[in-house]
Amino acid sequence: MALIVHKYGGTSVGSTDRIRNVARRVAKWHAAGHRMVVVPSAMSGETNRLLGLARELSSDPDPRELDVIASTGEQVTIGLLSIALKELGLKAKSYTGAQVRVTTDSAFTKARIREIDDAAIRADLDQGTVVVVAGFQGMDELGNITTLGRGGSDTSAVALAAALKADECLIYTDVDGVYTTDPRIVPEARRLATVTFEEMLEMASLGSKVLQIRSVEFAGKYKVPLRVLSSLTDPLLPLEEEARSGTLITFEEDKSMEQAVISGIAFTRDEAKITVMGVPDRPGIAYQILGPIGDANIDVDMIIQNASVGGLTDFSFTVNRGEYAKAQEVLATRVKDAIKAAEIRGDDKVCKVSMVGVGMRTHAGIASLMFRTLSEEGINIQMISTSEIKISVVIDDKYMELAVRALHKAFGLEQAA
Amino acid sequence: MALIVHKYGGTSVGSTDRIRNVARRVAKWHAAGHRMVVVPSAMSGETNRLLGLARELSSDPDPRELDVIASTGEQVTIGLLSIALKELGLKAKSYTGAQVRVTTDSAFTKARIREIDDAAIRADLDQGTVVVVAGFQGMDELGNITTLGRGGSDTSAVALAAALKADECLIYTDVDGVYTTDPRIVPEARRLATVTFEEMLEMASLGSKVLQIRSVEFAGKYKVPLRVLSSLTDPLLPLEEEARSGTLITFEEDKSMEQAVISGIAFTRDEAKITVMGVPDRPGIAYQILGPIGDANIDVDMIIQNASVGGLTDFSFTVNRGEYAKAQEVLATRVKDAIKAAEIRGDDKVCKVSMVGVGMRTHAGIASLMFRTLSEEGINIQMISTSEIKISVVIDDKYMELAVRALHKAFGLEQAA
Repeated sequence: MALIVHKYGGTSVGSTDRIRNVARRVAKWHAAGHRMVVVPSAMSGETNRLLGLARELSSDPDPRELDVIASTGEQVTIGLLSIALKELGLKAKSYTGAQVRVTTDSAFTKARIREIDDAAIRADLDQGTVVVVAGFQGMDELGNITTLGRGGSDTSAVALAAALKADECLIYTDVDGVYTTDPRIVPEARRLATVTFEEMLEMASLGSKVLQIRSVEFAGKYKVPLRVLSSLTDPLLPLEEEARSGTLITFEEDKSMEQAVISGIAFTRDEAKITVMGVPDRPGIAYQILGPIGDANIDVDMIIQNASVGGLTDFSFTVNRGEYAKAQEVLATRVKDAIKAAEIRGDDKVCKVSMVGVGMRTHAGIASLMFRTLSEEGINIQMISTSEIKISVVIDDKYMELAVRALHKAFGLEQAA
Repeated sequence: MALIVHKYGGTSVGSTDRIRNVARRVAKWHAAGHRMVVVPSAMSGETNRLLGLARELSSDPDPRELDVIASTGEQVTIGLLSIALKELGLKAKSYTGAQVRVTTDSAFTKARIREIDDAAIRADLDQGTVVVVAGFQGMDELGNITTLGRGGSDTSAVALAAALKADECLIYTDVDGVYTTDPRIVPEARRLATVTFEEMLEMASLGSKVLQIRSVEFAGKYKVPLRVLSSLTDPLLPLEEEARSGTLITFEEDKSMEQAVISGIAFTRDEAKITVMGVPDRPGIAYQILGPIGDANIDVDMIIQNASVGGLTDFSFTVNRGEYAKAQEVLATRVKDAIKAAEIRGDDKVCKVSMVGVGMRTHAGIASLMFRTLSEEGINIQMISTSEIKISVVIDDKYMELAVRALHKAFGLEQAA
């Protein structure tokens, strides 16, 4: 008699037929005696349709109003799913983010969850009601509607699972788990039965689209057992079989078996690189450059500062490609003259490719094999960044697929560990 | 420097181009120094699309969830209109019904407004902000989303105007005012420059689609000056001209000129008639029949009880055609045996045609001319109901247009009074 959170992506609720299938799947879990909370996304295409209307009216629409508009996508789905559940004879009740009191900060279009009031949901669960909560949205302390950014429904589901101390959070999606890399690029890519939380965090942050990074952070912070699995299987598949499918995100490295050195290769094309050249190499300079960028709500990813030559250094960082123009403008108007930089260069035709694996901690030579592989394909590395369990490189956009395929082969990822 | 409420129907906000036109119109009023509150409906077709999705999932969808779904239509429009207003350089801010705190009862899909908290809106208006409020929706005391029923945005606008003590509430729609009857049926129908509140109330309740009846009730109760006018004119039309266009709903009969005997002919096809036959004629019988109907949230319109014959009487009433089946079921299961009725008959192929005019008070012979006109066309009258300023008849559905045209001509409504 566990408390289970299900999350369904936009494709999984993309039509009333599919919503009916989700209802059957939830009913199967409910019939097994579990207390069920379900978090659906908007129907596929709906968020884009809504934001498209806004963009017809303004090239720079007010983010507060974008959230008012975009949050309706999930609001429609919770109503429809509740109706489908009731049609199967279950008790069901929908909640918007504001109705739950999913309190967030006020960073419209990319808000962060601060607190979740679980009282109303618990009361409903105690009555045997299936609780359907709109993903992707919350409300700030002033009562404004906020959204959590793309993929935010994953975060909503995991945050709810954490607040409710759920036994497991199942993320149903249109892929059947986490792969060594994207099978559309490398057909030999292999599904992982388990992946550690740390690896998943790196992969999510590095562009693997399976889970939104903040959902993984939440899962790690609150130790929410998380499973990624397919919503495209028969909804009446035996529950025991379904409960073991997909990829489980684990919290401890599996010591009972030989750990693979590398778990996967993540990549993202959505990158842009900016270099501030000829910067005086003095304390506080990084803050003077990145402070205004942060104030403009632009997320910075990789940051690299080269060794100083003659008291001047080059300072590089990457941002999401969609924020490249805005970042350039902030630097031109608020930074360049203030710090007496010589020049600002940029390139929005770059991508990032990363090798991820907790096995790196105990195996040497990963970086050199990676660099040699890229070199043999004639791919120039523009930036390098490493952590304990990953190595990322920024390369020319056009080499992305080639790099991923070559690395997947060089590290033998098509074979099970 | 008046406080003005504008309400725009679904056709007026049916595309981003039209929303842009609404923004221009509002900006024109704002530029003249007025404090502006705007209440848009959902984009035309959107509410039907959303409810259609719900009906694909259930033939009897949960009303609470229908309101969660349907309320998103207006939520999208308030965001889009706010963006369009900001694009013109105005300050603008959207509010859902729940954000305003439009408190209603819990009668989902047909809730009634109990209270409106005007504090936040007033604060915004004081800052020169155009306030955009979602029509059609509110929230009950438990925080559930409610909707006010079809046409409920009119009621939202008038209720807001009342709460804010607005100087005028302008209802922009796809017709340019109130006509003696529907011009699609009678091409000679004439626009009325003014109509009294009482007449408008009768016309709205009798099926004239220009305004929702509850909005007229609110306007009457709180003495909100109300004007119905076209949103299809050039949004940059001189304000003085626009402000005098359409039809003004007045609170006092115009004593300075001869009042027309009849102001208009209203009709509704959306009717069904039910007769409970062979009912014992004793005190309390009407309550025993209509009590359970009311409990089922079915609105009853006309009620007629014939004179008793041999201690038994026939009891007839009309309901909205969409609630005919439900009303029949309530009678069959909860009323028929309890009151020992002989039989229950019904007909959902009827319509109602009504003559409305404050002039009836001082003119005799209206009823006889009406009945003679219908008789000459061979139309049988099934039920009759009268008030001080209207006469309604229920007739066979198929004669509706014929009846309206014949009456319009017989009473000379094509000529100005």
